[in-house]
Amino acid sequence: MDYSEIFNNLVLSFKNAFYKTGAENVVIGVSGGIDSALACAVLCTALGKDKVKGYFMPYKTSSEHSYNDALKLSEKYGFKLEVVDISSVADAFINISNNITSLRKGNIMARCRMVILFDKAAEHSGIVAGTSNRTELLLGYGTWYGDTASSINIVGELYKREVYGVSAKAGMVESIMKKAPTADLWPGQTDESELGFTYELIDNILYDIEQQHLGRNELYEKYDKESVDKIIKRIISNSFKRHTAFICKSGIDKRSNINENIFLNLDK
Amino acid sequence: MDYSEIFNNLVLSFKNAFYKTGAENVVIGVSGGIDSALACAVLCTALGKDKVKGYFMPYKTSSEHSYNDALKLSEKYGFKLEVVDISSVADAFINISNNITSLRKGNIMARCRMVILFDKAAEHSGIVAGTSNRTELLLGYGTWYGDTASSINIVGELYKREVYGVSAKAGMVESIMKKAPTADLWPGQTDESELGFTYELIDNILYDIEQQHLGRNELYEKYDKESVDKIIKRIISNSFKRHTAFICKSGIDKRSNINENIFLNLDK
Repeated sequence: MDYSEIFNNLVLSFKNAFYKTGAENVVIGVSGGIDSALACAVLCTALGKDKVKGYFMPYKTSSEHSYNDALKLSEKYGFKLEVVDISSVADAFINISNNITSLRKGNIMARCRMVILFDKAAEHSGIVAGTSNRTELLLGYGTWYGDTASSINIVGELYKREVYGVSAKAGMVESIMKKAPTADLWPGQTDESELGFTYELIDNILYDIEQQHLGRNELYEKYDKESVDKIIKRIISNSFKRHTAFICKSGIDKRSNINENIFLNLDK
Repeated sequence: MDYSEIFNNLVLSFKNAFYKTGAENVVIGVSGGIDSALACAVLCTALGKDKVKGYFMPYKTSSEHSYNDALKLSEKYGFKLEVVDISSVADAFINISNNITSLRKGNIMARCRMVILFDKAAEHSGIVAGTSNRTELLLGYGTWYGDTASSINIVGELYKREVYGVSAKAGMVESIMKKAPTADLWPGQTDESELGFTYELIDNILYDIEQQHLGRNELYEKYDKESVDKIIKRIISNSFKRHTAFICKSGIDKRSNINENIFLNLDK
């Protein structure tokens, strides 16, 4: 499938989902990275630039480069980019916390951004666009109820390499295409050094599992055994992040999970 | 089914889910209301009081009564209750927000409590227990990615009246049993006045729909037509709160949602 066709499909799918919500605008956190950049391109194409409200939300240690990239993106697509410094809100949490670690700080930041985006959505009669790609969702490389939380996720079906492929075809800002993916939690951080694998290796393995249906032994023939096992283990142990909470079973009258169809079919 | 049997089932179901996570403790927001109170009773029975970390998280306008009830609960079951005042964190968000409304403030507070609970969970190698009951989940009476967000929800299968039934059988604190349910967002607030219906009416209608499979016309024969329609409309329009974000369709190689079973069955 051609990457420009995928872009158009995302535009149509988003429009369809958006108009069902009754919302008037869409708000999105713009990090300066490729995922939110592609999401902005899709949103501006789908709704027009005036309905897209972008928020760059730095913490005091965030990189200046990120802002420059976010700004170039907003200039290219014409949407309004507002800066909301999260230092005061994140530090308010950090101040009332004990023995905080970098990991916990990162999770607090991601959740602060979520709180701000949903508040901005309420201010603008909008919904929140999500920007977690399929690779991140599978690895659980994100914060539960934080950056992975949104109303409509734009790029969640695409592996990281496909995000690049579609972005290139859409004429993405060069500096965003070229820089190393990073969560920008501390200076010099890159996703790949933190994950311990290249995105190329990860995406090849994910694709072979999900789209080619290879089993573990077949994967061992193509890739390093330890990498395969580590990646699969990570996917399984982080599966909770892809779902809402487990609901304890009461045993009462064979009660099941809420079935939305019951309510949609009350007239039949 | 006997209410004490339901209590035991919740205990077993929680234990089973908890031990799968590998966590050592459970953290829970204790509001002084009946849902978190029953959840605490289940947790202390399941894990023992020392593994249950309770947090009472008032905003500066919260009711003093709520704290007294939370304290009585912690004394009855013996778990440690810590007070975390959310005024500083919630106000940090309110200060950087525009034209804030009461509803948006309430959502910010609910999400601040979520952020704190997940941070406490990380501090204590724990998981977050959820306390949204089935009635609240169905009505969408809660904050998406806020109070409805948790790791394991204890009472989510039970309608509000069943929460009371199980609590009574478990010997719940009298003052918690007797007070009017409230989200305590402003003085004098009650759930029923905000919802516009009594829990009795709501629960009867929900039960008839979900467990008795009545259609709309059958409901009209038993209840006021306007109430039935309003409640059903609310359930349907808030269904998004029961799910994670919709993921836009890319059309690429008939790609589907992530299927967890693929990863669990790689050895077969």
